[in-house]
Amino acid sequence: MSISNVSIDGKRLLGDLYRLREFGTYKTGVHRPTFSPVDMDSRRWLAERMREAGLEPEIDGIGNVIGRGAGEGPRVLLGSHTETQPHAGWLDGALGVMYGLEVARTLGRGVDVVSWADEEGHYVSFLGSRSHVGDLSEADIDAARNRYDATPLRDALAQAGLAGRGRAAFEPGRYVGYLEAHIEQGDELDTTGRKIGVVTSIVGIWQYRVVIAGVQNHAGTTRMAIRKDAGVAAVKLLSAIERRFPDVAAPRSVWTAGRIALTPGAPSIVPGGAEILFQFRDADPEVLQRLETTLEELVAEANQGPCTAVLENISRSIPKTMDPGFQAALDRAAERYAPGLHQRMPSGAGHDAQQLARVMPAAMLFVPSIGGISHHYTEDTADDDIVLGCQVLAAAVAEILAG
Amino acid sequence: MSISNVSIDGKRLLGDLYRLREFGTYKTGVHRPTFSPVDMDSRRWLAERMREAGLEPEIDGIGNVIGRGAGEGPRVLLGSHTETQPHAGWLDGALGVMYGLEVARTLGRGVDVVSWADEEGHYVSFLGSRSHVGDLSEADIDAARNRYDATPLRDALAQAGLAGRGRAAFEPGRYVGYLEAHIEQGDELDTTGRKIGVVTSIVGIWQYRVVIAGVQNHAGTTRMAIRKDAGVAAVKLLSAIERRFPDVAAPRSVWTAGRIALTPGAPSIVPGGAEILFQFRDADPEVLQRLETTLEELVAEANQGPCTAVLENISRSIPKTMDPGFQAALDRAAERYAPGLHQRMPSGAGHDAQQLARVMPAAMLFVPSIGGISHHYTEDTADDDIVLGCQVLAAAVAEILAG
Repeated sequence: MSISNVSIDGKRLLGDLYRLREFGTYKTGVHRPTFSPVDMDSRRWLAERMREAGLEPEIDGIGNVIGRGAGEGPRVLLGSHTETQPHAGWLDGALGVMYGLEVARTLGRGVDVVSWADEEGHYVSFLGSRSHVGDLSEADIDAARNRYDATPLRDALAQAGLAGRGRAAFEPGRYVGYLEAHIEQGDELDTTGRKIGVVTSIVGIWQYRVVIAGVQNHAGTTRMAIRKDAGVAAVKLLSAIERRFPDVAAPRSVWTAGRIALTPGAPSIVPGGAEILFQFRDADPEVLQRLETTLEELVAEANQGPCTAVLENISRSIPKTMDPGFQAALDRAAERYAPGLHQRMPSGAGHDAQQLARVMPAAMLFVPSIGGISHHYTEDTADDDIVLGCQVLAAAVAEILAG
Repeated sequence: MSISNVSIDGKRLLGDLYRLREFGTYKTGVHRPTFSPVDMDSRRWLAERMREAGLEPEIDGIGNVIGRGAGEGPRVLLGSHTETQPHAGWLDGALGVMYGLEVARTLGRGVDVVSWADEEGHYVSFLGSRSHVGDLSEADIDAARNRYDATPLRDALAQAGLAGRGRAAFEPGRYVGYLEAHIEQGDELDTTGRKIGVVTSIVGIWQYRVVIAGVQNHAGTTRMAIRKDAGVAAVKLLSAIERRFPDVAAPRSVWTAGRIALTPGAPSIVPGGAEILFQFRDADPEVLQRLETTLEELVAEANQGPCTAVLENISRSIPKTMDPGFQAALDRAAERYAPGLHQRMPSGAGHDAQQLARVMPAAMLFVPSIGGISHHYTEDTADDDIVLGCQVLAAAVAEILAG
């Protein structure tokens, strides 16, 4: 197949994205939680669109929608996810799934398309892609509950009509690799006016809980000298993190204390307990290790004070480097359709591609997010940028399949 | 009346306190929220005990239980409050009310006894004593709701059978003054082994809300350099307070951030908002003013950063000096019954006495709190210390009435 012959149908692509947005419209965005009735409706609609595109669709036992093309020869898997965060944007993962469908229609062969279930973690982050690569046991499914309303995942699967269906497992040798498109979710492309980001790696995310124990007491009768104020201890620890982390972090490292909760949290009571949810991200395992060591040192220093502080690791995901050959193909396609308006960049967010990268070469392409807004109903990307991104992906896939 | 003839009945006093504890027993403490059925039962029981003691009881339209003695001559008002904090201790204000009853029985004349409604602020802090001194309008009552379940105060009063009753107002000239006994709630008496605290003043409490606004964003894709993290801004402000306040505070000043809440409070989202509940207390108005000025400066400094911080004052209570003559009478009585085992001290907690001090001379007496524990079901005071405290109060009142 000659790359010069590849030309997607931008109007058709946008039409499908507009139609998908109607499943769970919320203001200018979408509210489509995993396995909700509207999410299942959208999966059945997607399966039907796959069939119209000449793919054989399957909704498997974990909710993944996979459309398989017939024929022989090299083959890639394209996709992302279609459920959304609560009251979130219309593009996010939906963009990558509809790109996959449009590329499959454009190229006519060599492309399977997938919508992975629950990347956003209403039940389990990367639920569908983890299932596909063999990293989700039946016991994991038994244990999982909805993070917002505690519905057991098993009940949700039964309600969605998926109980008893088999889960489609990765077939070694079927694919040359996996490519995923997504909105950037940051403001770098939007700020620089560039149109395409070629992802170099997906960062590792290391998450922690810090539990601080002091002594709850009356805020009027307890002298400062004898207080064991867990809130003050939390503030001192977080303040030390803000001072020390810049010295050991890499230029792209990010760290966040997303939650600070004091117990009991009343105006006239010295807090007896504090809980901090803390995380950091970087693409370099050595940097992640250095940040963890620093965090451990600072928590140890916190234990020199009147309160006790305990650091619990919640998770450590490993950074995933994207396939160099795929990156080069994406670079070339981007240079053809958006000359000088593309760049390489790491992904600070997690994506299904990091799961697929465990079993095959994987790569990602970003399009601009207006204002860098993500996970909010005002999230958006210009129609021209949406069409351009798909054209670049199609050209890169054509080159990859041409070998 | 000769002071030497005053001798309370410790067994009778303890019997009444044990009986009162049965209204809402919770573990070793009591759960008796204002205007709950069990609280109203306890008020009716108290009124009956007052009648047996020769006092004419009234439960007024705001729930105050007032027992008035007959006869002429000088008269004092003794009391405190009988409702409790949630799942709190059996003594707290109940001690001062039952002391009042026991002193009335012991002296036989010259004593009115009161249990003020809702000192603990289930609806409005100092509800009953504020009503009595004329600082509670009908509009205040209309506006008040239960802080835990949002029940309108009007509904609670109707449910308690108090709708339509008049509120008993302070009668100028009726009393020589007001005396209130209470557990210390701190650990100073317990630590030093002293038995009686004579309160010099009740501290002023100045309360604030700090609202910080940043920009909510993705914790992976938003670079550190462009973040407007409201949680980081809150930590920096609180850290600055911990550094600066010791330089401007007095030795007895206390300050507390009882609540820190981040919005939305999720692990992977840069907090877009933060709210801090902050308060400080001191007995000296100049110190309070200095602390407020410092707080204002630090909030102004916080506004130099990427987020905006707004300081709202919630309340400013004025420190109340206790009557010097009453303090001296309490000193003398304490020296007689607990020689060398008494001291003067400020009250770091608020009490109904600070409301009564607005209209007449007022004073307070503290007994030890074991381990300084307060507002918890394990709160306790040794029986001997309970009896001793009442004996000292009775002797002081006898001296005051003797003029």
